[in-house]
Amino acid sequence: MATKGSKQDSTKGTEGTLGELLRVPGGEPVDLGAYDAGGTPGGPGDKATGLAATALMGEELASLQERLWAAGSAGDRRRLLLVLQGMDTSGKGGTVKHVIGLFNPSGCRITAFKAPTHEELSHSFLWRIKRALPQPGEIGIFDRSLPHSRLRSTGGTPIEDILIARVHELVSRAQLTARYNQINGFEKSLADDGVTVVKCFLHISYDQQRRRLLERLDNPDKHWRFNAGDIDERALWPAYQEAYEIALERCSVGAPWYLIPADRKWYRNWAVSRLLLEHLEALDPQYPKADFDVAEYRRRLLAT
Amino acid sequence: MATKGSKQDSTKGTEGTLGELLRVPGGEPVDLGAYDAGGTPGGPGDKATGLAATALMGEELASLQERLWAAGSAGDRRRLLLVLQGMDTSGKGGTVKHVIGLFNPSGCRITAFKAPTHEELSHSFLWRIKRALPQPGEIGIFDRSLPHSRLRSTGGTPIEDILIARVHELVSRAQLTARYNQINGFEKSLADDGVTVVKCFLHISYDQQRRRLLERLDNPDKHWRFNAGDIDERALWPAYQEAYEIALERCSVGAPWYLIPADRKWYRNWAVSRLLLEHLEALDPQYPKADFDVAEYRRRLLAT
Repeated sequence: MATKGSKQDSTKGTEGTLGELLRVPGGEPVDLGAYDAGGTPGGPGDKATGLAATALMGEELASLQERLWAAGSAGDRRRLLLVLQGMDTSGKGGTVKHVIGLFNPSGCRITAFKAPTHEELSHSFLWRIKRALPQPGEIGIFDRSLPHSRLRSTGGTPIEDILIARVHELVSRAQLTARYNQINGFEKSLADDGVTVVKCFLHISYDQQRRRLLERLDNPDKHWRFNAGDIDERALWPAYQEAYEIALERCSVGAPWYLIPADRKWYRNWAVSRLLLEHLEALDPQYPKADFDVAEYRRRLLAT
Repeated sequence: MATKGSKQDSTKGTEGTLGELLRVPGGEPVDLGAYDAGGTPGGPGDKATGLAATALMGEELASLQERLWAAGSAGDRRRLLLVLQGMDTSGKGGTVKHVIGLFNPSGCRITAFKAPTHEELSHSFLWRIKRALPQPGEIGIFDRSLPHSRLRSTGGTPIEDILIARVHELVSRAQLTARYNQINGFEKSLADDGVTVVKCFLHISYDQQRRRLLERLDNPDKHWRFNAGDIDERALWPAYQEAYEIALERCSVGAPWYLIPADRKWYRNWAVSRLLLEHLEALDPQYPKADFDVAEYRRRLLAT
């Protein structure tokens, strides 16, 4: 599936940040076919190096997370929200396991959106999203917990809801446009409130999805991860790709989408880790200064 | 602080499970002074071996967690709840970071109880506890997020609330007895609903607490972890120890308390990991069998 003239030139990696290399230019038509799902733009040259590099980032990530948390405890309202999207089997769960697993679980707030409750349905579609946001100092993760085949009657993240609605023609185009605008407005308000949103689209190829579904069928320990509707939904691949293309184009106004080639799991994990690292380094959270007389408390402690 | 004739004889380790070695006999008076906080009962002989053994357990723990989660997705209602208690600086946060960090964060539900909301205060003290319980297939963790000095006006886990109430004489002894009974009844109902509760008391010595508080004062990056009330609360050490002794005695009726010597962090992490491993192995969750025709879906997939 290597694509000649891929939009993401791997030789660019050393010049700037990975974010610059992977970000989707907002407002321009997106052609997913022009992005090589098996590529490793800006990444280590092979799997062994990639795995080692990701493991090495773990300590830096956890250290920056602690500083973010510490700053949050002293009134800094900043936090980070990772949004994971992608076709079934694109590796959202694996990313949480391997990348979020590098952080201190205490400071992570993972939300896998399931069928909305009665209470949630009585509010705007953004209501439950707002309730799941990371608090100051936290790292939030938004995932959908259900395959596309079961989302139609339930609901996922706002973008997934739009995708499903578009693919299955559940709402009018005018309604879709209104939703994109609502999401963009919402993301703007998040930025104003100190939430850095890192949106990752995990891009896999049609062939890779077949291989991953086959793995789930050929290993009895993975049967529980296979859903009877997965193959019907796979038949809608072109419609989904088009829906993602439009969402990536329309919703890169505030926080950009990052397009992560995800056929290689080691690259996917490396790239998401690296993007989080770049964003946390840019936030540069600081340990708060003591608001008490350290020497005095030291003296009192030593007297005990 | 090595105690001759410690209640936890480290030579017993090879005979049975760690749970048998560390569990507090319910209904008998507990003398915390008889337990060596610096001991390593049943554990590896030194720090390097202990760290390696804990890291090695990580894979088994994550694998059992995946099976628990998979079984939960197919209707198995079982789950596990780790409750962490202990004096300030006993290492609850470090245990979450290093032990829960071994699991897949997706399947963990960590609750650090803070000041109750207005809604929570309008209900029974168990109401918010029930809402924070792990769902089937999940691993839940209950921690208090505030130091003792700030819990008095806020609230933590039910046991902490009782401790504070007892140490500061906020309620009558009759009320305390009623609370112990309510907690025991609640734990019984949890067991009936498939929740395995693993309660760990992290036992540190008075000297070790001084060292850890001093570390927080002597390192500017740790000032944020020091609370001005910590030293006042430390003056109540004997009253807290007594309150813990009574709670350990009264609330080992259903799920037992495990008394974890916690002066050595590496042993504490090893012991909690080992206890979780023993409980998960006893649950022995199984991957669910496919409820669809695997061959038929395989054929359909290969046609795409």
